[in-house]
Amino acid sequence: LNRIKASGLKLRFCTNETQATREKFVKKLQGMGFDISVTEVTAPAPAACRILKERSLRPHLLVHNDLVPEFAEIDKANPNCVVIGDAAENFTYANLNEAFRVLIGMEKPVLISLGRGRYYKETDGLKLDVGAYMKALEYACDVQAEVVGKPAKAFFESALAEMGVPPQEAIMIGDDIVNDVGGAQRCGMRALQVRTGKYRPCDENHPHVKPDAYVNNLAEAVDIILQQL
Amino acid sequence: LNRIKASGLKLRFCTNETQATREKFVKKLQGMGFDISVTEVTAPAPAACRILKERSLRPHLLVHNDLVPEFAEIDKANPNCVVIGDAAENFTYANLNEAFRVLIGMEKPVLISLGRGRYYKETDGLKLDVGAYMKALEYACDVQAEVVGKPAKAFFESALAEMGVPPQEAIMIGDDIVNDVGGAQRCGMRALQVRTGKYRPCDENHPHVKPDAYVNNLAEAVDIILQQL
Repeated sequence: LNRIKASGLKLRFCTNETQATREKFVKKLQGMGFDISVTEVTAPAPAACRILKERSLRPHLLVHNDLVPEFAEIDKANPNCVVIGDAAENFTYANLNEAFRVLIGMEKPVLISLGRGRYYKETDGLKLDVGAYMKALEYACDVQAEVVGKPAKAFFESALAEMGVPPQEAIMIGDDIVNDVGGAQRCGMRALQVRTGKYRPCDENHPHVKPDAYVNNLAEAVDIILQQL
Repeated sequence: LNRIKASGLKLRFCTNETQATREKFVKKLQGMGFDISVTEVTAPAPAACRILKERSLRPHLLVHNDLVPEFAEIDKANPNCVVIGDAAENFTYANLNEAFRVLIGMEKPVLISLGRGRYYKETDGLKLDVGAYMKALEYACDVQAEVVGKPAKAFFESALAEMGVPPQEAIMIGDDIVNDVGGAQRCGMRALQVRTGKYRPCDENHPHVKPDAYVNNLAEAVDIILQQL
């Protein structure tokens, strides 16, 4: 990371984290020794806020308590859309019914989902991710959610816009074959898959997505990028 | 109802009720004055039990507490499938994650759903029905649920088998254009839609399903049927 920053290349961190504010997310990474600030982070909640403001949407929020501060400046009175994130313990029967009632009460229901993940692993086991609950509401209301966050094209485009870089001059480095590599490529960027984290050997036989190259770790990705300057 | 029974016609009650045992369901109808017994009822839970036995499936249950007695005779140790019903208050975050973990842990996940309803109305408002939670698990595990109950063809067929009547000699009377009328017709039966209960005027313009006739109430349906004997 330091070598990239020293090279003068523009850098942006794209995360699908929706269980916490960017502030909390950045603190965690700083604690692990990363040189990173909030202004360098592209995350679903602020991307959703931009959409809400542009379209004068007032959300009913079904999100994690720790994410609520990201929506502090958004008018939430008399909601005309539902925003769903990985609400975790907030995915109660009562809260799901409430979000559903808000949606079904609209003439044309608008559902914005902060990601479409199926599930993820925590120390106490696998958990259903926001995508599963999004599907439940989509089915009940016969609507299609607008997904904010990776792999949505608009999400990568806003990261590029924030850097002022066209897609063909940008490289994405990530461990997720669909959300990172697939999303970035669909946006016109090149994409490296690192063989760490979420990477699985079977990713290399993925039916639709093929990274521009594989690297064994982040340092190797940086080597390749700096060599080509 | 009494006129049909007096005529000697065979009769079967088909319900998608999965919040209570047939015993409880029948007691409620008897309390309303209906001449009905448990042996005359076709319901999703016993239909599911038949499937479980036939295929040596041991279910993990995500159902309403009041429905559990219907599965009393079924081996539930070391589950190799998940059965989901309208679990209502049992649709907790913890229970959904648990059902998901059982499913995703199988080599080939088997999900049996006691219906595919989107939502229903209770005195305190609209509630998400089993279909929404079925979709959440389908998406998370990348499986297709096997739906037991209306409008599944197999459900109507088992009602016919219980009466020993071929579909072309049977008539379905119901208020739900898709679950009752559509399901029965797909099974080769004729179907009357009553203009009560769930009936909505827009049903008469349904893009796919057209009942063989409309009636204003159950008595009118009986008139028509008895006239044609």
